[in-house]
Amino acid sequence: MPLRSPAEYIESLRDERTVYFRGQRVPDVTQHPAMHIAIEHAAIDYGLAEEPEHRTLAVVEDDGQPYSRYFKLPRSSQDLLDRSALIELSTRKGATMVCLVKEIGTDCLLALTRVAQQTDAKLGTEYGPRVQRFFAHCRDNDLAMAVAQSDVKGDRSKGPSQQADPDQYVRIVSRDGQGIMVRGCKVHTSVSVNANELFVIPTRAMSETDADYAVAFAIPVATPGLKLIASPYDTHPKNRFEHPLSAEHKMFETMTVFDDVFVPWERVFLAGEWQMAGPLALGFVDYHRFTAVSYKLPLVDLLVGAAFCMAEYNGIEKAGHVRDKLIWLVSYAETLRALTRHSALECVPTAEGLVKPHTLTVNMAKHHFASHYHQALAYVQDITGGLAATAPAVEDFQAPELAGYLRKYLAGKAPYTAEERMRMVNLVQDLTASDFAGYHAVLAIHAEGSIEAEKLAILREYDPQPAVQYAQSLALSS
Amino acid sequence: MPLRSPAEYIESLRDERTVYFRGQRVPDVTQHPAMHIAIEHAAIDYGLAEEPEHRTLAVVEDDGQPYSRYFKLPRSSQDLLDRSALIELSTRKGATMVCLVKEIGTDCLLALTRVAQQTDAKLGTEYGPRVQRFFAHCRDNDLAMAVAQSDVKGDRSKGPSQQADPDQYVRIVSRDGQGIMVRGCKVHTSVSVNANELFVIPTRAMSETDADYAVAFAIPVATPGLKLIASPYDTHPKNRFEHPLSAEHKMFETMTVFDDVFVPWERVFLAGEWQMAGPLALGFVDYHRFTAVSYKLPLVDLLVGAAFCMAEYNGIEKAGHVRDKLIWLVSYAETLRALTRHSALECVPTAEGLVKPHTLTVNMAKHHFASHYHQALAYVQDITGGLAATAPAVEDFQAPELAGYLRKYLAGKAPYTAEERMRMVNLVQDLTASDFAGYHAVLAIHAEGSIEAEKLAILREYDPQPAVQYAQSLALSS
Amino acid sequence: MPLRSPAEYIESLRDERTVYFRGQRVPDVTQHPAMHIAIEHAAIDYGLAEEPEHRTLAVVEDDGQPYSRYFKLPRSSQDLLDRSALIELSTRKGATMVCLVKEIGTDCLLALTRVAQQTDAKLGTEYGPRVQRFFAHCRDNDLAMAVAQSDVKGDRSKGPSQQADPDQYVRIVSRDGQGIMVRGCKVHTSVSVNANELFVIPTRAMSETDADYAVAFAIPVATPGLKLIASPYDTHPKNRFEHPLSAEHKMFETMTVFDDVFVPWERVFLAGEWQMAGPLALGFVDYHRFTAVSYKLPLVDLLVGAAFCMAEYNGIEKAGHVRDKLIWLVSYAETLRALTRHSALECVPTAEGLVKPHTLTVNMAKHHFASHYHQALAYVQDITGGLAATAPAVEDFQAPELAGYLRKYLAGKAPYTAEERMRMVNLVQDLTASDFAGYHAVLAIHAEGSIEAEKLAILREYDPQPAVQYAQSLALSS
Amino acid sequence: MPLRSPAEYIESLRDERTVYFRGQRVPDVTQHPAMHIAIEHAAIDYGLAEEPEHRTLAVVEDDGQPYSRYFKLPRSSQDLLDRSALIELSTRKGATMVCLVKEIGTDCLLALTRVAQQTDAKLGTEYGPRVQRFFAHCRDNDLAMAVAQSDVKGDRSKGPSQQADPDQYVRIVSRDGQGIMVRGCKVHTSVSVNANELFVIPTRAMSETDADYAVAFAIPVATPGLKLIASPYDTHPKNRFEHPLSAEHKMFETMTVFDDVFVPWERVFLAGEWQMAGPLALGFVDYHRFTAVSYKLPLVDLLVGAAFCMAEYNGIEKAGHVRDKLIWLVSYAETLRALTRHSALECVPTAEGLVKPHTLTVNMAKHHFASHYHQALAYVQDITGGLAATAPAVEDFQAPELAGYLRKYLAGKAPYTAEERMRMVNLVQDLTASDFAGYHAVLAIHAEGSIEAEKLAILREYDPQPAVQYAQSLALSS
Repeated sequence: MPLRSPAEYIESLRDERTVYFRGQRVPDVTQHPAMHIAIEHAAIDYGLAEEPEHRTLAVVEDDGQPYSRYFKLPRSSQDLLDRSALIELSTRKGATMVCLVKEIGTDCLLALTRVAQQTDAKLGTEYGPRVQRFFAHCRDNDLAMAVAQSDVKGDRSKGPSQQADPDQYVRIVSRDGQGIMVRGCKVHTSVSVNANELFVIPTRAMSETDADYAVAFAIPVATPGLKLIASPYDTHPKNRFEHPLSAEHKMFETMTVFDDVFVPWERVFLAGEWQMAGPLALGFVDYHRFTAVSYKLPLVDLLVGAAFCMAEYNGIEKAGHVRDKLIWLVSYAETLRALTRHSALECVPTAEGLVKPHTLTVNMAKHHFASHYHQALAYVQDITGGLAATAPAVEDFQAPELAGYLRKYLAGKAPYTAEERMRMVNLVQDLTASDFAGYHAVLAIHAEGSIEAEKLAILREYDPQPAVQYAQSLALSS
Repeated sequence: MPLRSPAEYIESLRDERTVYFRGQRVPDVTQHPAMHIAIEHAAIDYGLAEEPEHRTLAVVEDDGQPYSRYFKLPRSSQDLLDRSALIELSTRKGATMVCLVKEIGTDCLLALTRVAQQTDAKLGTEYGPRVQRFFAHCRDNDLAMAVAQSDVKGDRSKGPSQQADPDQYVRIVSRDGQGIMVRGCKVHTSVSVNANELFVIPTRAMSETDADYAVAFAIPVATPGLKLIASPYDTHPKNRFEHPLSAEHKMFETMTVFDDVFVPWERVFLAGEWQMAGPLALGFVDYHRFTAVSYKLPLVDLLVGAAFCMAEYNGIEKAGHVRDKLIWLVSYAETLRALTRHSALECVPTAEGLVKPHTLTVNMAKHHFASHYHQALAYVQDITGGLAATAPAVEDFQAPELAGYLRKYLAGKAPYTAEERMRMVNLVQDLTASDFAGYHAVLAIHAEGSIEAEKLAILREYDPQPAVQYAQSLALSS
Repeated sequence: MPLRSPAEYIESLRDERTVYFRGQRVPDVTQHPAMHIAIEHAAIDYGLAEEPEHRTLAVVEDDGQPYSRYFKLPRSSQDLLDRSALIELSTRKGATMVCLVKEIGTDCLLALTRVAQQTDAKLGTEYGPRVQRFFAHCRDNDLAMAVAQSDVKGDRSKGPSQQADPDQYVRIVSRDGQGIMVRGCKVHTSVSVNANELFVIPTRAMSETDADYAVAFAIPVATPGLKLIASPYDTHPKNRFEHPLSAEHKMFETMTVFDDVFVPWERVFLAGEWQMAGPLALGFVDYHRFTAVSYKLPLVDLLVGAAFCMAEYNGIEKAGHVRDKLIWLVSYAETLRALTRHSALECVPTAEGLVKPHTLTVNMAKHHFASHYHQALAYVQDITGGLAATAPAVEDFQAPELAGYLRKYLAGKAPYTAEERMRMVNLVQDLTASDFAGYHAVLAIHAEGSIEAEKLAILREYDPQPAVQYAQSLALSS
Repeated sequence: MPLRSPAEYIESLRDERTVYFRGQRVPDVTQHPAMHIAIEHAAIDYGLAEEPEHRTLAVVEDDGQPYSRYFKLPRSSQDLLDRSALIELSTRKGATMVCLVKEIGTDCLLALTRVAQQTDAKLGTEYGPRVQRFFAHCRDNDLAMAVAQSDVKGDRSKGPSQQADPDQYVRIVSRDGQGIMVRGCKVHTSVSVNANELFVIPTRAMSETDADYAVAFAIPVATPGLKLIASPYDTHPKNRFEHPLSAEHKMFETMTVFDDVFVPWERVFLAGEWQMAGPLALGFVDYHRFTAVSYKLPLVDLLVGAAFCMAEYNGIEKAGHVRDKLIWLVSYAETLRALTRHSALECVPTAEGLVKPHTLTVNMAKHHFASHYHQALAYVQDITGGLAATAPAVEDFQAPELAGYLRKYLAGKAPYTAEERMRMVNLVQDLTASDFAGYHAVLAIHAEGSIEAEKLAILREYDPQPAVQYAQSLALSS
């Protein structure tokens, strides 16, 4: 089966899916004004395969069959570097917004591939072949995929089975020969309104009493009982002049309700094996945080690039404090890039014959990005000036009685015109001081694992013994 | 003349002022959907005088004549503390957005009062009585005032008179027996669309060749030739549920064009005395940064309060990292409060019989606020969770087929309901991750002087001699 | 009884006290080479009363009886400001090292005064008059005092009475009609080798089973069974040229062993009233952290002063990064000063008729100081240059064959000579990169409560209700 | 010629070298109490070749001739990784103190090799073969080498030839057929007292008028006219118990005076070619900063290891704030390690057929290390506790009347004994709060280029064009 074109991808979204926006059922997501933007954006992931200069990166062939590189099982550093480069490229085309419809799903498929084999080996189940078939289904049909992981969690001091309301984590409410019935709700589910398949995996480790919550599966988005309540965040109409990034690039999240959804066994990948909930949750994260740091690269590059431009356009590029801030921004961006690449170069072979990025390094990269992101915004705003919040409108540039004032009074250092300067100011506004900027900022802290989750991973992954023994050998030997 | 009511203030804005919004002339600012919000917001400054519990703070009496406390000449720490408390109160009512229509104008009047006397003493001019009359005019008519200070500046490496285009700083193009003609453009002029009077002062120190740029004056906003081009930033329609702060609170900035505006001598307060441009610019800043730190207090309090609430609603208030972040936020807010109060308690008498807040301390307060503001946003977002960017819409709570899901799945730790929790999540979104949040963030860095300006002020105001002599006495005496 | 002279103070230390240094009993602390330095240093606290220009600050009179201001019960902001100024002055004379022999003891006496009254009121004891008599004894005899608070603590996850070894917190092993017998060990006891009286108070709150550990008392340092094991830290001989601070200024800490020490009832101030252990521990801290921030002021001033000098001597005072670091250092020092003063200005009256500094502000001040101290060292070292670790010796300046090279090659920017510059470099080395510097650094973090203790105090002292209610009123009312 | 043994190295230092310590000529550096320690320490670099388990790393063979790996010309990432591993190993054995007698010299030889070829190609000189012969001389005789780079600089706002005293940078005072005569003084010259050869290179770029200052050469340390004035920093006697690191590990710096020193042409590598002074200064830094980040790894590992140990011994390893600090320390150390390795993996081929580490990444690594080093000290001190400045002496553990108290009261959490715990406390003191710690701290900021030099290198090495074009393409295309 050939790769799908962007148009084919978009057409595939016109089905019976149950999507709500501002209290209203959306009859056709491809026609919805805001969702339309998100869908065109996600289609970038499909368009790359059609661009000659990107074909080699975007597409691989197996036995003469082309398929998206996202589905390539990583077996070397180079595989990971290529995957990272592809994610970076599509996000760059997406104006810093990740496309995600192939990225996150394949992160999940890689984790399922690994954990299914582990589960079969440990517990005598037969998930391996099932996952393999489903993997081929997604790959061969070039599907768009979403992953629902974060449960609503209820009282966070209690586990899934200890909650007053048993549905605070997605769970199996019944099972029969055909499959399982699931209930619950996931939040922060990205690209679900414009995916073909929705994957569901646990959000945390579980204990034996939580067995019904140890559940993983995949369903078509149009499955009965699955209800997607889309967030209205950042969906007001915009023009490209004032919002050069967000006017045409958008990702949707949903509150994802499973109101007794039936899943046939062939699509069930974990059902009660509570011991494997933690490994699956973490296994996904192992790949997904690598995706995350890869797709953050265009974002940090744009912060750097915009800062250099504004320094130049404003004529302050030689000021000591401006240089200091530029250096900080360069270090911020390039340390992320170096750590991201390094995690691929130092990848670790897994028992299943794959490789995974070096987890400690990935988490340090993500933590580096996340914990300094807001400071980066501050520096870019500082260099840009107050116009980032007080610039005139696109229409003012078009009004004959006003355009002259704008051209005269808002020009940058020669030869930069007022329009060039204001376009860059607007980019900075969109990037650092807008609804869209807020979205990026919240994602920086919470997406693909919170800052605290990354810190825990750093402590968990680090082996202190060499350092401890070094300290003891020096302290105790004298 | 009595104090004006909010309605009287609003009615006074219906005049011939030339205001543009998105390329269109605005016939009546009070009827413009976005400006209407800003005007209602600014009217808070007028409403306080009518609230019995705030009357004592908002109004003072002289010879039986009541007038707004903003016009009280500060002669003691208590005067400054009262002024600060009034600014804090009106901003608190304004949901963290300063009202400004009395604050900034009186900051400027205080500076003019001081500098006019200095100028007269030094240069034999007669600005003092003129300023005094104008001061009485504003006070007795309870006027709303805007201040235009930031010039567009052109090539920042050059002074006003060295620019290729002589109009990059506002200047006197001609003068006659009646007054002066001025040309140029100021940016970032706050509340100009809804003020009665617009004050204009220089943005920096000047040299002798810049004499024509050393100009200060006041004009009614409806003066011919004065054109206000309003920024469209954050003017899309909002509902209060999702935007509890910004749906009803708003401040407007304009690009403020002086297209050969005539100003009669009675309203001219500096005209060529280039030596006094710097003192006037700094004299304004002396009071205005004190206003700034005063009006930031509700903002930092709200960050703290929202963080405490979200920690509690999410049931994570005992987690170590959450406590750490709360402590950081408390220190951030209370250090600002302590420094603000301290700058009033340690106020400095001026030669003109007034007091001014302790400049070094004010600048440390402002710098403390500004340089950690983005980190504060990050911590509040961290405690709040990803819902700050993915929450459902107000209409979802109202839709019968969805409301049940929301109530079930988004509830906070008992007894906090989903609606309570989501309202607070929305407040955090509005406060930290929205256009409105971006506005606050850019203002944090640039308004009332940039971070770099505050740093320069700290170095300028600090007397290193005691510390230097202490170091030398210890180093050199042995 | 008159105030004691420095000589009388020193003479009073020649008694039967049991002090060990490097495994050896010290027969006479005043003759010990290292302790001699510490004693001369502490005598500064006595010398101030004899200096006419400082007499007013150092001495107060009651009914014609002069006594050290340290013993004045604070009843106003001014009393606290005076106390702070006196502490700052004596530390300034002590070249950044606090003298402490009056400071810490009176902090403790103030706490005992308050808690004794609380205990009597609550539990019907009669500690109040006893404390009052002891207070008068110390004041009227102008005594030097040390306070032992930190227990060795054993397993920190367990309380005093839960330890495997019951002596890990100082405890009452027996009691009779004459008094109590105590056993245990305190660490980090400053100035104990050169004090007259040693006060002992609990280190933490206690539960009922810990009653025997709820003990406070005072004993002369020469009391049998009390054994002081002095730390050898930073006791190697030094010359003043290379160590302008530490060659003549020193404080000693001891491990303080109570090997069944008898304390007569008249000197017992808590004995089993476990409920009051916490209040006494915290009551001491309330005053002692105010002492701490007061005595840090000369230290931060010296960092600032040395940085300004080195920038000037090195001729780099105009470099952007140097100015940035100077500004940072100024803000660091002056924010500490402002918060310290403010905590006195906003002091809180106590039920016992005294005032205490505003606890939240004191803790913010201390936390501000402690959490940025190491960064301050880095900036001073940065401005100073590598010579801070590679400078030649005092003897090189005196050697005829070398002095010429030094004068020629190490001169600063005119007119600063090589010797002036090197003296300042040595001061920086002593202050930031030496055993003495390490001592200051560890004290910054741990003395008078660790950074974490200060953070807990900030959270405990802050009332979140106003901020919470503000957030709720904005979020929930719409 | 075979590799030299440690004993042979030491014996080779007994020559006519002119070394001063505290104003006195040192007749034999191997017999000087403090220098003896430094020499034994440096001999580690020689001892490694004799240890079977390290032979492969320490020694390479060419045509059957073994020589120290330091002299291997790097032609691949693996060569750089091996070089880095060897530097790390010898420093690890040196208890965090770099040995340097082979490291720094070969950094310089690599730079000379590259720049000599560049100079010959550009200016028709014949330095290439000369450098090659000298390289072979050092390699084949397994010499210990020091590098003198930092000039005293005089007035830093002026260049070498603009100084009032022409000798503020090392210069050629005359030249004849035999060679050149040089005069001037370098500071911060490490390991010069215990090297065989001293290399001299320029400290900065030069202009044409500075031609006489563009000079590079090498001389035996015992050359007439060369005078080494050793710094007395951290040379007081110590015992290993209290100073487990510094009692036996030490590096010496000298003020290095060239009092008309003659250098034969065969040893002159730059003499007037002012265009190449900058490239040589930077070429050295390219390799030397890579050496620096390599030898910092044991230091940061020891900070991490000591922190984990103290957390465990103190029984506080589960406290939230302790975990936070451990995570910070792990990230600090492992980010340095990752960037260091990455700079080798991404090495850049040079025109001369060598590779050099990726300069941007090396500088980010060094800047990362240097700019957070003091914070790392603070966290280790925080976890360790106040005993880092108040611990008892080694003799107290040996005194029968005291040892029991120490064992009873200073024990750590079971099973850690008081002695183990105190040994680790002493290690922390030595590492973070001592003269030795101060030395490390000043080196962190200034050695191998200051923090500001690293920042400049980051800005210089970064190519902003891709980021700028990305920003422009997004901003300007709409």
